[in-house]
This record gives sequence, C-alpha cells and structure tokens, in this order.
Amino acid sequence: MVEALTLHEDPRSGNCYKIRLTAALLGLPLATRSYDIMQGETRTTEFLSKVNPNGRIPVLQINDASGARFLPESNAACWYLAHGSALIPQERFAQADMLRWMFFEQYNHEPNVATLRFWLRFVGEARLSAEQRGQMMAKRIAGCAALDLMDRHLAEHSFFAGDAVTLADIALFAYTHVAEEGGFGLGDYPHILAWIARVQALPGFVAMD
Amino acid sequence: MVEALTLHEDPRSGNCYKIRLTAALLGLPLATRSYDIMQGETRTTEFLSKVNPNGRIPVLQINDASGARFLPESNAACWYLAHGSALIPQERFAQADMLRWMFFEQYNHEPNVATLRFWLRFVGEARLSAEQRGQMMAKRIAGCAALDLMDRHLAEHSFFAGDAVTLADIALFAYTHVAEEGGFGLGDYPHILAWIARVQALPGFVAMD
Repeated sequence: MVEALTLHEDPRSGNCYKIRLTAALLGLPLATRSYDIMQGETRTTEFLSKVNPNGRIPVLQINDASGARFLPESNAACWYLAHGSALIPQERFAQADMLRWMFFEQYNHEPNVATLRFWLRFVGEARLSAEQRGQMMAKRIAGCAALDLMDRHLAEHSFFAGDAVTLADIALFAYTHVAEEGGFGLGDYPHILAWIARVQALPGFVAMD
Repeated sequence: MVEALTLHEDPRSGNCYKIRLTAALLGLPLATRSYDIMQGETRTTEFLSKVNPNGRIPVLQINDASGARFLPESNAACWYLAHGSALIPQERFAQADMLRWMFFEQYNHEPNVATLRFWLRFVGEARLSAEQRGQMMAKRIAGCAALDLMDRHLAEHSFFAGDAVTLADIALFAYTHVAEEGGFGLGDYPHILAWIARVQALPGFVAMD
C-alpha cells in the first residue's frame, strides 16, 4: 500500500499553506479536508478525539499499511514531507540553522504577523475584544522587529539557511507574503520583497489561494 | 582542532537549561558565558552584532577550524548537539513527532508557562505593567491547557515521541518542572509528575540550578 497524505486545513491559514507549498515543491500528492475555524469546526469532540487533542489545524494525516497517524504543528508536518529531500540540508550546522529560523517563525513571527492578519482581515477590527485591542501595539512592534531581522539577514543571503531554498523559507514565506493583510507595509523591507519573488519563482510553486 | 562549544546564557532561563541538560545527557563539554537579561546585557551593540541580532539568549557558539558560528533558538541548539544521537529518533514519523512537541513547546507552552514564571518570580507582580497584568488570565488559561494536553498524553506514554527520552522531553521538562514558580499547581497533573521523576532519573541528568 502506498502512503496516502491528507491535510486537515483551513485554506485561509498560512500554517496550512506551508504544508501545501512543501508538497507542491516536492511533487507529492496531497488530499485536503477543509474546516472553518471561525465556526469552531476544529473544537468538536470528534476532531479532538481523532485528529488533534490541541484543537488546531493544520494536521497532516498519514495513511499507510499500519493505519492512520496524525501529525499536528505545521513545521513538523513540513519536516515529515521533506524527509530526505533537498529542502532539508544534510550538513549539521545548516540543518540546525534551518530549524533555528523555523522556531523563530513560530515564536517571534507567527504570534505577531499572523495574529494581526487574522484579527484585521478575518475577525474585523470592530469585533476585537478589549484584551485583543490592548495587545495590538505590542504585536505591531514585535512583528516589525521580526520582519526587520529577516530583512537584514536577506540583505546578505539569498535564503535563510545554507545556500538554497529550505523549509525555513517556506515557513517564513507563508505569513510574510500576506503581511500587508495584517497592516505591515512590506515596502519598508526591500530584501524581503526580493526574496518573496525568488520563492514565487521556484519550480512547482503554488500560490496560497 | 576539536570543536569547542560555548553557551551564551542566563542561568535562570529554562531555554538555556535545555541546552545544558542536552549536553549533560550526551556527555559533551560545554563552556558557559553568563548574561543578566534583567540588566539588558543581551541588547548591547556588541551582543547584537556578534552573538545574536535578535538580542536573545540562549545562543550556542560553535568554534572549530572554520571559525566561530552562532546558533540562536534553544531547540535548534539542542538539535545541533544531539545530531546522530539517540536523543533524536531516526524513524521518519517519530522524528517529525518529536519536532511536533518541540514546536508545541515554543508556541503553546513557553509563552504562557515560562512567561508567567518570569513575571511572577523575577520581575515581581507589583512591578508588572498594566498590559502585562491584562494578559495574565489568558496566559494562565493557555498554560493550563498546555499542561493538561501533556498530562493526557503522558497518561498513555512514558515519553513524548517514540518509546524513549528525546529532545521533546528535554524541551518540555525545562519550564514544566518549575511551573509552580509561575503559579501552576503541578498536583493537578499526576502523569506529568511521574514523567518529571523519569527525566530526573536519567543517567547524566543535571538540575537547573
């Protein structure tokens, strides 16, 4: 039995897009099952018990002869798909440095750049809670700091780890290329804009929508 | 020239402790250089230009014949140290599942459990800003959810990924075993307490202080 891959996703999520982009660049077939997170579809009893007890998408489902296994966390799912491919450098330092940028993405970038996009584009500023409003300025500052760090790195490097595209680029591309939907002006970051064009020119590239 | 390893750290930081614990379990010599983050010692011009432009510790410095290289992000530094060791499962799914828990640690656990510990133990509740106070309840709820998810996983597994201790356990142990310093009562999580004892019994284990 050949391994079959299904992505449990919300198509508007950059975290889900990372996995679709990784599969596309690798030429791997990937089925999808959509959920509307705004309607709580990842918090149902069935989803929590079967797909992900953390109540979040994306989750990569891997079906093979031993049954179905479920892998949450976008960057871990990309790692699974890219196993043994050129998207993961084999050299020890470059591999760890790639993971460095992927952890940076989840800690410094996503909670700021992606959350402001979610709040402003999908929730709507008028519907934000007082607590959310109180966090907007801090997230704006932290998101700009993350983009600034990326821009300075890209001033001297074509990609984030090693000399070629890796999962670090895919992870950071997902929410960076739509950062303007969260109110971040990418015109301030010329090296990021050039890098976005390099990623979009990759053979097999697929757009988010 | 033999590779020499230096950890740029604040000894009170669980993120730094992860790297010391990984090195200890592997029997690797690790020099340390201490910084006081409360005094802004990781925001100096020299630190930003030479060690980490993100202004954060830990950073693992690797000196070998090709010079000095710097690796930020605690979980990436652990990955570098554990390369080729039994702390990283070789089987494809188990390796990705280990990273799944390490990304969970940085996204769902550390910003809640570690941040409340930092605020309550090191900053002091009386000195928190209004914005920090406004976030405490949300961080309490999210931290409890992370601990609850861990406890339910550990009800059925001895360790987080595969059948033996991996970097996922080290990453999650660092701030979990001192979660009470952030006001989290570990008595509510019996499976976490049993797992803490298993980690502390590992050959080569070193304590945080």
